[in-house]
Amino acid sequence: MKGDMQYDSSGRLRHFLTIEGLEKETLVHILDTAETFISFGKREIKKVPILRGKTVVNLFFENSTRTRTTFEIAAKRLSADVINLNPSRMSTSKGESVLDTVRNLEAMHTDLFVVRDAHSGAAYLIAQHVPSHVAIINAGDGRHAHPTQAMLDVFTIRQHKREFKNLRVAIVGDILHSRVARSQIHALNILGTPEVRVVAPKTLLPTEVERLGVHPYTDMRLGLKDVDVVIMLRLQLERMQGTLIASEQEYFTLYGLTAEKLAHASPDVMVMHPGPINRGLEIDSEVADGPHSVILNQVTNGIAVRMSIMAIVMGGQADRKQA
Amino acid sequence: MKGDMQYDSSGRLRHFLTIEGLEKETLVHILDTAETFISFGKREIKKVPILRGKTVVNLFFENSTRTRTTFEIAAKRLSADVINLNPSRMSTSKGESVLDTVRNLEAMHTDLFVVRDAHSGAAYLIAQHVPSHVAIINAGDGRHAHPTQAMLDVFTIRQHKREFKNLRVAIVGDILHSRVARSQIHALNILGTPEVRVVAPKTLLPTEVERLGVHPYTDMRLGLKDVDVVIMLRLQLERMQGTLIASEQEYFTLYGLTAEKLAHASPDVMVMHPGPINRGLEIDSEVADGPHSVILNQVTNGIAVRMSIMAIVMGGQADRKQA
Amino acid sequence: MKGDMQYDSSGRLRHFLTIEGLEKETLVHILDTAETFISFGKREIKKVPILRGKTVVNLFFENSTRTRTTFEIAAKRLSADVINLNPSRMSTSKGESVLDTVRNLEAMHTDLFVVRDAHSGAAYLIAQHVPSHVAIINAGDGRHAHPTQAMLDVFTIRQHKREFKNLRVAIVGDILHSRVARSQIHALNILGTPEVRVVAPKTLLPTEVERLGVHPYTDMRLGLKDVDVVIMLRLQLERMQGTLIASEQEYFTLYGLTAEKLAHASPDVMVMHPGPINRGLEIDSEVADGPHSVILNQVTNGIAVRMSIMAIVMGGQADRKQA
Repeated sequence: MKGDMQYDSSGRLRHFLTIEGLEKETLVHILDTAETFISFGKREIKKVPILRGKTVVNLFFENSTRTRTTFEIAAKRLSADVINLNPSRMSTSKGESVLDTVRNLEAMHTDLFVVRDAHSGAAYLIAQHVPSHVAIINAGDGRHAHPTQAMLDVFTIRQHKREFKNLRVAIVGDILHSRVARSQIHALNILGTPEVRVVAPKTLLPTEVERLGVHPYTDMRLGLKDVDVVIMLRLQLERMQGTLIASEQEYFTLYGLTAEKLAHASPDVMVMHPGPINRGLEIDSEVADGPHSVILNQVTNGIAVRMSIMAIVMGGQADRKQA
Repeated sequence: MKGDMQYDSSGRLRHFLTIEGLEKETLVHILDTAETFISFGKREIKKVPILRGKTVVNLFFENSTRTRTTFEIAAKRLSADVINLNPSRMSTSKGESVLDTVRNLEAMHTDLFVVRDAHSGAAYLIAQHVPSHVAIINAGDGRHAHPTQAMLDVFTIRQHKREFKNLRVAIVGDILHSRVARSQIHALNILGTPEVRVVAPKTLLPTEVERLGVHPYTDMRLGLKDVDVVIMLRLQLERMQGTLIASEQEYFTLYGLTAEKLAHASPDVMVMHPGPINRGLEIDSEVADGPHSVILNQVTNGIAVRMSIMAIVMGGQADRKQA
Repeated sequence: MKGDMQYDSSGRLRHFLTIEGLEKETLVHILDTAETFISFGKREIKKVPILRGKTVVNLFFENSTRTRTTFEIAAKRLSADVINLNPSRMSTSKGESVLDTVRNLEAMHTDLFVVRDAHSGAAYLIAQHVPSHVAIINAGDGRHAHPTQAMLDVFTIRQHKREFKNLRVAIVGDILHSRVARSQIHALNILGTPEVRVVAPKTLLPTEVERLGVHPYTDMRLGLKDVDVVIMLRLQLERMQGTLIASEQEYFTLYGLTAEKLAHASPDVMVMHPGPINRGLEIDSEVADGPHSVILNQVTNGIAVRMSIMAIVMGGQADRKQA
């Protein structure tokens, strides 16, 4: 699943499925475009006609009110018509009928599908089968990727740190199952972050994780030593076979972010989390609500970054691979 | 349930409840108006202000995401505000409280109700009780009618065959329970189709089906002989008492549309299906995705035809019984 | 929970949480503004740009399609973008995570939350924590308040009776559990209604109910004697411990509104009900649909009053405590 099919023959970004394989210029262009939408959220009239008369379909096979809401708000601020669909996996148990659903929607001349699915590769599969006027954005597919989340994360980092070239970033939590971590690692690497660390118990680290271009740590205090950015992952208890972590309490003791552990990081460290946070499980409220936290900035930036990506894949913004 | 109450005293179409009793001129006017919306789906800005400032309520007592979505898209492209409601039959078990729901909605100055219900006559009942400024469109009521589906079907036939006057059309499947078939038969007859056949096992044919103006066949190969159009119906297993068909496999053998059976039809036969298709049950994938299939055209046309009907009953388009 | 925090330092109404503590001038201003939206419902284009580019979130922790729909229609007619959310109480069992939900939504630069919750004080709690650019409207919190319902009720009374200063009003039904009754009593008192009665079996009257400024009656015929307005409450069987009323039949005999009981009221009495009505339980169909009933007017007025309140708290209309 490389990024190549995300570009059309003239190098324009036409789908946004995964960070892997994207050019640095593309990421920078997304971030720069998002910048123009940031002030926008505070305007009197938060609406631009970029997608007026377009139909955006939120196609969420896996339910996520939170993520769906961010895309719905972003699309409406771009003046698109939005259709929310939550097809049950029951009625679409065969891959083929997912495609039938998609073919029907595209026959209705819808323009952009925001796809979420519990199966890795779902957005990619759909993108392979849509005609050239339909764009696909991946809003999370299984354990594979959550590229818009990664983009809002690097946007938030750039907002506070300006550049990536001197940064030490630690991602902490269930790296093994996290599509968010996977996308973040690719984005940070492409943007030239010199040191990306992953911090987790051995059971939650992928084998040969170094091949992703990261440095693994099982001791959190060592992992946080002098880092400029800490990205906490949400612990998704429902995805864990009881054996992966001993107990919630032990997990919090070893890998929960507390003020004490955070003191090992750089004095102006940023604390990030994709939300929703499990207070007292992976992060202490004192830290989540503290002066280093940019968690709510991430949410704000999420709207601007999603507006940016939607506008770009819909051709509302020029986007050349080779500028 | 005749069509008479669908016209107001000056002959204007004010509700769209059933094909039965409509004038040929009305059907042709709907088709001609839909024609103007067809190119529309490919425009840069798919939005016209015909229903701007109007409130359309999708009142689906019977759930159908698919049909609801087509009405939602059609209404939004006409610039209406859309409210989706899914009142549980539980809370509206008595006919009277369905009317209370409707009276409340009309008191909110909503303008158009798109009604779907598992009970035959629901849209008709509601239309009898609304004031003159509210229009009702039937989006399927029990076994009675699904007139917008029939209109998109005849639109698709006209698009490919130009005229009805020389056509042989076969409708195949569960004629007995199908509101779609009933509406199609009326529409084809009104538009002057000389030969309409229905093909089904005896258990799925209404008694005295000939009185509807159709020719019944129980042998599919004979039924398809030299036809210009094959309309497959969806087999709705949930509606069948176990005894009506022996087994899915036997049904497919006898009445599933395969390339072999289709070879008995005219060489330029059109294959239609209201969707969603049960691949391998009533239709073979090879045929559903083959060169004769216009199944996805039907979906595309469905938006244009529903825009047309909405615009006409809302008076956005003149519609005289006698032109 | 006084009304004081509903005003900002310059006396502008910035939240609408409860009637208690509001100035008479504020209520009159809401009613006068609603007046301007009444003719509006009959216009060709029912849309004004007062909230264009604003995002309204219907945050319904307690489900109520009916009330949600009225806010959705009102917001859309003001040209706002509307997001409907139904967070399960499951996922927000702790007060703290309700606030996390809210903080996330406000980080998305949403402007107005319409909050409904089964817990008294929910809207108030949220209002205490939002920044100055976010407004909160209470759409019903536990047994505490339902202030927009009360405003549409007093609007309907004023529409028919002009003034409050000579009125006798009786509220009949489950006063004990009713947030609607509580808000109505405050509104009627603030607007200077000389006599407000509550009529209910002893088990459904709060202790020391007189302290709310009302006159309690357990005999309905006495309670209705010469009143100008009867407000029936919905009997919410699901909220009653089996012991509070003997049986539905006995309840209807004693407290159901029939033509016979209504004959004790003033000849031009108005009959009101917040809906949905339980025909034959708290009100007879003959009365609900009879010449004294203004139940559907209440629904119509509900849209105008909610538009008014939304416009005012969003600053679309000036609103000074001291004019």
